Amino acid sequence: MKKLWEGRFSEDTDRLVEEFTASISFDKRLYKYDIMGSIAHCKMLGRCGILNKEETKKIVNGLENIEKEIEEGEFEFDTGLEDIHMNIEKRLIDEIGDPGGKLHTGRSRNDQVALDMRLYLRDEIQEIIKGIKELKRSIIRIAKKNVDTIMPGYTHLQRAQPVLVSHHFLAYFEMLDRDEERFKDSLKRINVMPLGSAALAGTSLPIDRDYVASLLNFPKITTNSIDSVSDRDFTIEFCAAASILMMHLSRLSEELILWSSSEFNFIEIGDSFCTGSSIMPQKKNPDVPELVRGKTGKIYGNLFSLLTMMKSLPLAYNRDMQEDKRPLFDTVDTVKASLNIYSRLLKEIKLKKDEMSNAASKGFTTATDMSDYLVKKGLPFRETHKIVGEIVKYCINKNKRFEDLGLKKMKEFSDLFEDDIFRYIKVENSINGKMSKGGTSGKEVLKRIAEIE
Amino acid sequence: MKKLWEGRFSEDTDRLVEEFTASISFDKRLYKYDIMGSIAHCKMLGRCGILNKEETKKIVNGLENIEKEIEEGEFEFDTGLEDIHMNIEKRLIDEIGDPGGKLHTGRSRNDQVALDMRLYLRDEIQEIIKGIKELKRSIIRIAKKNVDTIMPGYTHLQRAQPVLVSHHFLAYFEMLDRDEERFKDSLKRINVMPLGSAALAGTSLPIDRDYVASLLNFPKITTNSIDSVSDRDFTIEFCAAASILMMHLSRLSEELILWSSSEFNFIEIGDSFCTGSSIMPQKKNPDVPELVRGKTGKIYGNLFSLLTMMKSLPLAYNRDMQEDKRPLFDTVDTVKASLNIYSRLLKEIKLKKDEMSNAASKGFTTATDMSDYLVKKGLPFRETHKIVGEIVKYCINKNKRFEDLGLKKMKEFSDLFEDDIFRYIKVENSINGKMSKGGTSGKEVLKRIAEIE
Amino acid sequence: MKKLWEGRFSEDTDRLVEEFTASISFDKRLYKYDIMGSIAHCKMLGRCGILNKEETKKIVNGLENIEKEIEEGEFEFDTGLEDIHMNIEKRLIDEIGDPGGKLHTGRSRNDQVALDMRLYLRDEIQEIIKGIKELKRSIIRIAKKNVDTIMPGYTHLQRAQPVLVSHHFLAYFEMLDRDEERFKDSLKRINVMPLGSAALAGTSLPIDRDYVASLLNFPKITTNSIDSVSDRDFTIEFCAAASILMMHLSRLSEELILWSSSEFNFIEIGDSFCTGSSIMPQKKNPDVPELVRGKTGKIYGNLFSLLTMMKSLPLAYNRDMQEDKRPLFDTVDTVKASLNIYSRLLKEIKLKKDEMSNAASKGFTTATDMSDYLVKKGLPFRETHKIVGEIVKYCINKNKRFEDLGLKKMKEFSDLFEDDIFRYIKVENSINGKMSKGGTSGKEVLKRIAEIE
Amino acid sequence: MKKLWEGRFSEDTDRLVEEFTASISFDKRLYKYDIMGSIAHCKMLGRCGILNKEETKKIVNGLENIEKEIEEGEFEFDTGLEDIHMNIEKRLIDEIGDPGGKLHTGRSRNDQVALDMRLYLRDEIQEIIKGIKELKRSIIRIAKKNVDTIMPGYTHLQRAQPVLVSHHFLAYFEMLDRDEERFKDSLKRINVMPLGSAALAGTSLPIDRDYVASLLNFPKITTNSIDSVSDRDFTIEFCAAASILMMHLSRLSEELILWSSSEFNFIEIGDSFCTGSSIMPQKKNPDVPELVRGKTGKIYGNLFSLLTMMKSLPLAYNRDMQEDKRPLFDTVDTVKASLNIYSRLLKEIKLKKDEMSNAASKGFTTATDMSDYLVKKGLPFRETHKIVGEIVKYCINKNKRFEDLGLKKMKEFSDLFEDDIFRYIKVENSINGKMSKGGTSGKEVLKRIAEIE
Repeated sequence: MKKLWEGRFSEDTDRLVEEFTASISFDKRLYKYDIMGSIAHCKMLGRCGILNKEETKKIVNGLENIEKEIEEGEFEFDTGLEDIHMNIEKRLIDEIGDPGGKLHTGRSRNDQVALDMRLYLRDEIQEIIKGIKELKRSIIRIAKKNVDTIMPGYTHLQRAQPVLVSHHFLAYFEMLDRDEERFKDSLKRINVMPLGSAALAGTSLPIDRDYVASLLNFPKITTNSIDSVSDRDFTIEFCAAASILMMHLSRLSEELILWSSSEFNFIEIGDSFCTGSSIMPQKKNPDVPELVRGKTGKIYGNLFSLLTMMKSLPLAYNRDMQEDKRPLFDTVDTVKASLNIYSRLLKEIKLKKDEMSNAASKGFTTATDMSDYLVKKGLPFRETHKIVGEIVKYCINKNKRFEDLGLKKMKEFSDLFEDDIFRYIKVENSINGKMSKGGTSGKEVLKRIAEIE
Repeated sequence: MKKLWEGRFSEDTDRLVEEFTASISFDKRLYKYDIMGSIAHCKMLGRCGILNKEETKKIVNGLENIEKEIEEGEFEFDTGLEDIHMNIEKRLIDEIGDPGGKLHTGRSRNDQVALDMRLYLRDEIQEIIKGIKELKRSIIRIAKKNVDTIMPGYTHLQRAQPVLVSHHFLAYFEMLDRDEERFKDSLKRINVMPLGSAALAGTSLPIDRDYVASLLNFPKITTNSIDSVSDRDFTIEFCAAASILMMHLSRLSEELILWSSSEFNFIEIGDSFCTGSSIMPQKKNPDVPELVRGKTGKIYGNLFSLLTMMKSLPLAYNRDMQEDKRPLFDTVDTVKASLNIYSRLLKEIKLKKDEMSNAASKGFTTATDMSDYLVKKGLPFRETHKIVGEIVKYCINKNKRFEDLGLKKMKEFSDLFEDDIFRYIKVENSINGKMSKGGTSGKEVLKRIAEIE
Repeated sequence: MKKLWEGRFSEDTDRLVEEFTASISFDKRLYKYDIMGSIAHCKMLGRCGILNKEETKKIVNGLENIEKEIEEGEFEFDTGLEDIHMNIEKRLIDEIGDPGGKLHTGRSRNDQVALDMRLYLRDEIQEIIKGIKELKRSIIRIAKKNVDTIMPGYTHLQRAQPVLVSHHFLAYFEMLDRDEERFKDSLKRINVMPLGSAALAGTSLPIDRDYVASLLNFPKITTNSIDSVSDRDFTIEFCAAASILMMHLSRLSEELILWSSSEFNFIEIGDSFCTGSSIMPQKKNPDVPELVRGKTGKIYGNLFSLLTMMKSLPLAYNRDMQEDKRPLFDTVDTVKASLNIYSRLLKEIKLKKDEMSNAASKGFTTATDMSDYLVKKGLPFRETHKIVGEIVKYCINKNKRFEDLGLKKMKEFSDLFEDDIFRYIKVENSINGKMSKGGTSGKEVLKRIAEIE
Repeated sequence: MKKLWEGRFSEDTDRLVEEFTASISFDKRLYKYDIMGSIAHCKMLGRCGILNKEETKKIVNGLENIEKEIEEGEFEFDTGLEDIHMNIEKRLIDEIGDPGGKLHTGRSRNDQVALDMRLYLRDEIQEIIKGIKELKRSIIRIAKKNVDTIMPGYTHLQRAQPVLVSHHFLAYFEMLDRDEERFKDSLKRINVMPLGSAALAGTSLPIDRDYVASLLNFPKITTNSIDSVSDRDFTIEFCAAASILMMHLSRLSEELILWSSSEFNFIEIGDSFCTGSSIMPQKKNPDVPELVRGKTGKIYGNLFSLLTMMKSLPLAYNRDMQEDKRPLFDTVDTVKASLNIYSRLLKEIKLKKDEMSNAASKGFTTATDMSDYLVKKGLPFRETHKIVGEIVKYCINKNKRFEDLGLKKMKEFSDLFEDDIFRYIKVENSINGKMSKGGTSGKEVLKRIAEIE
């Protein structure tokens, strides 16, 4: 297969090499951005007098036709033409002849692919941000519906203190909020126009990079041509933000899986969001959370792939960098799908409020409140901690709950206890007492929801 | 779409969930192994009287027909049927009716997929070992052709001591040899038959696991049913061995890229194994080594994906584990392709012997020999090191080579120098002097080649 | 500070550079192996006539004295001397004068450090294997004590089928068994003697590498000097085996944490193996399993550090490779400590047998047995699966257990049910029926224990 | 050893467990921040009337004394007291008695350590940003000194087009600039005050979190108490930014190593920044760049340690999270040291201008200019690319440079060539022609430097 760069070569490319080096099988998904970039480049060449009107028009039309062909599935991609750029350019030349051969003037595949990737990722990040916002809405919905629902808060997976289900879900809201911020921050470094850096040194043709940027809606252009073609920070930064997001989803997944177990029995995921077993007729499995948790590994792996790939590459472009695409595409797809399915899954979860609230009232979850009670009566915190610890030990040994101890017994541990202690350590009162900012009291939680909305 | 496990469910699976959870798009490549395993399972059920002869025959025929259908591209895979196992089973039931519904007796998808993966990986490792052997042969070929070719050996990328090109390439032989060993070692843990572990507890049906093992050529069966369905060690161990192999290929790649540079100018890779530039007409790029080096990142990433995925999963099977397939398949494909292309690439490399040998004679590469010369005359090594260091400093300042100094000058540094020093520090003599076992002398190198062959 | 290699240099090393490049702060732990290797090297030089008897004796004595000094904490390590090798050699020269300067004859730090690392790792792997064996013994102890204890087996963290606690723990035995095998396999590639490869090319001095190997108990020597000084496979392979081991421990940790929760309530970890909370007096946290689970991340990270470090390094030695030590040492220490603490922790776990057995009898865990019952009566498996699924659905809706349905009701689903079905689906019978090899029946479990012992 | 939380426990902590769980050996470096946070907390408790003036004063004094003790090396850290928080609190109680026991009122170690880590990282990021700025200055210095120095620009490590050394170094400026931005962005999420979230639910004591924030200079407080104690995003985001930075330094390192080789021979690193060989007297090795390149692995590994550690942890705090410290501290230390040493190293590099410029004029680096020449004469780019490719092939075969061909010969390839072609393809003219924004022409480079300054 004839190559567009074959002038200097004496032998044809080996078949195996063609296959090994071609990226068309996966970079074809960039076609839209490649054509969009080429049209902007062509218009600029026209405006700068490097192409005449006629040529400009022919090229733009030709590219638009190719886009249509691709969208209608009528375009034949050719491995021998290596990549999406060459596939489109070759087709253009076949269709419109000579002017097609002028399109690549003043640019190189090095800056062209950098442009395509930035256009692509800019779009996809918008989609991901939409996905995050949607999931945040689902969380708010649950939070609002459960401002009265009580559950045990955990540390070390041990019941720690009673909290509102609302408050617990809002913790994920905060995580997602930071994730959104991170993606937005990354956009600042993605949304920069590299075209016109050519191979690595810029070009001697009188091009107008700012004009290309304005046609493609970039707020600024890159400032160093060598850096422009060797920078893949933006893909790595994106993958890092995606890894943190997936880490958050893996935590949510873990909790949904735990809560779906017979032991926790806090939630029921709708039948339409579960699958069964090929052998055990009774099984209903939380496959979606499990898969999201499992896919976290892949997203981490993708990040590591890119970091490794870029390690100690000399400037400027190296062919290694072609390997950034598959991990990036896979990350984009997985993150979008995971956000999407979670937005819907959360609507299909039935909370078993009694079970949750029940669990919250067991396990001495208000021991800290009992300790605070004594602090308020003037004892040093460290002493109250010890006293209550001993009450807990006593209760465990006697198989009693706090409520089962009378005031008399309580006074054996500290005579500061009065009758109001039993009201004080009721789960509802414990929760509503947590009035510190960001605490789990209904008042604080409602304030936060109002703030968000 | 009706599911084979739907008995207990009140609602159909959500479309989005079907897509999110289905693995058929990538696990269909296991069809051959799935059918092979099912046939063995069916024959065993027949032999144990769980199926009658008639049923056994129908199922085996049915499965063989399905295999043909798939190979001829006439099988329609259905996302609604989740995975390769369900796709094949459903088709079998459609084709042969009732007996088809009996195939899954005494097994579960949990042990079935474990079997498929082991059968698959066992085959692929054989292919990879073949690929390694082939690449080792390519290396031996170069080594044999270059027992007289001299190059500088490097440490810290500084010329260190002259070595034979042969010897340098044989270092890669040793690495590949260890890689081969590692893959072979991993086979011991892969080549174990898990079927009959059923969901996780074994089965109460009177099956014969050893018979299945013998039909499928497994030397042993797994010994704990829970472990059998939750073990993915073998995929991780494989990916670790693959990562080390790719690390080796990345080192070879780095060297081929360096040597192809104008600065080193040690080799020329054949035109058919290089590609050009879309903009710079003079360029001929070592794309293949660059891509292999770049793909190393992906292989590391795949290993990390699997390790992360398995981290802290409770026993036994969890759906997360479905995510082991794509990283594994990608690793297998990449390793095979990289080995294959390197076996051929090495044949297309032209060594520029004069340049290599020339480089070896510059940079005071025989300074250590000069030091050894003095050691042999009785000076402590640390002293000879210092003396020669000073000669080097003198030469650099005066812009001279060792050969340019007369004996008189030499004697100013140490009067142990005699006329034979100049013969002693000739590059050829330096090399041939390295007679310690495993050293770079021609004699040692030839001995090693003989040993290998 | 004067350097032993300073002959060729005009300026002293910058202070900051000394600190940045020095490895003495962490490689000093290799002192024992460095001295052991130097003594063997020295004896060999003596035997080959490169050193005379007197010198040999002085050096050996000197080195033995230095070892004592170090062990008694009287040796002053000096950052200016870079590493453990130079620290010891300099001290030797200071102590015994000229002969000390001859010790480094015929070797380089490149092969010296390779030797030290191999000696070190060979020892530590023996320790780790001991640790694994000890942990396996702890597991066997639990398994033997619990051949009658019943628990629910899980898939997807949903109760799946009843299993023996014995069987569940033995799954970890199998994992550890493979881990042990992997470490043993890695030893084959570690236990190879590299000394005498010198800088990278071997040496012209008449050394005897086999003699050194025999003194140090190495079954073989390396066969290519360039490879010998650039090979770090053995550290990576070790870290990969360690990562898989820690993955296993992270799974065990996850289960112990789950089981310690109020919701599972399957075990109680002894007070002496837990810690409390600074604020919540009632808390008793499973810190040890949590930390082991958390440390898994570090061990994975260490593996990736090494893989990244080695990626695309040209031959032979590069200074980057100094960075292999800390990740390796940390991996060794963490793995040993984790194994050790787990061996002891397992003895401090109290199983709550009633709770476990209770849990096993809920959640329709014998649905598969019910299905098998019908299979044995001749129904195709796929049909029995559907029938039982519907019984489960019926029970959930009516809030009944299988046992609560009378035979009459059962017959509405399939008239193949007879009175014996209720005996058949008792949890104990379910377990004891799993007679397939490797299954959870008491008979199979006892067989496996016997086999192991 | 008595624990501050021991009330509920019947047995002492096992010695081994104490050692395994204690973090004091590495978290003691947080002492300054722990005390700073405690003082702010105490002042707030005083202001809110939870402590009286007397108590407040005693605690503040006590903490200040402890800080002094630690700084003067007189504080004895105790493993039995687990961590820096407990070590300080215990000492405070020992010193000032009862009031000391009140300090922990209204907080928990969970929010306390979150605060300490944020205070620590906020400081260190400022240091790192300073380090980046300093390195950027070193780069600008080189760039300014070398606005006339010519070198070959590379793609695929093949000479591509001549560029200014200035321009090449400025590419690193741009990378570091983005790195700085990323660290600054991460500060937005670090600089948030978590204290007062207590164990996970907030507190019922009337604390004032905003006051603590203002004392410690935090612009805002966290908004969800559960999230506050389980969020480790900020450490991961930091490690991701650090990984990208180290990736950049690894690229710079690779180039410095290449350029120091005899083959490139572009630079000489000062003696004081290199080290020698223990065996080869002539060696002068670029150890610093090698080590920075090698340390990149560790920094990547640290990132993955943290990502793995956090994967699928249920809310809120889990002990696993203690393992975030060592990777984080190591990342901070390594990044600071690497930036610092590179700022100085760059001053010690001597550029060999003649060699660089010489290299730029070989290898047909102006072939693209020749192609542009024909484009300007009206030929389609694709045709000019082919024509020049053929001229290159001709030259290689005849062993000629462009300059060696006469105009007559040139016209055989295209009659559009005129005499001005030879001026056009001079290296200087090639460079100065690259007037596109961000291109390598002197004018553009100077403009960028001016812009930066």
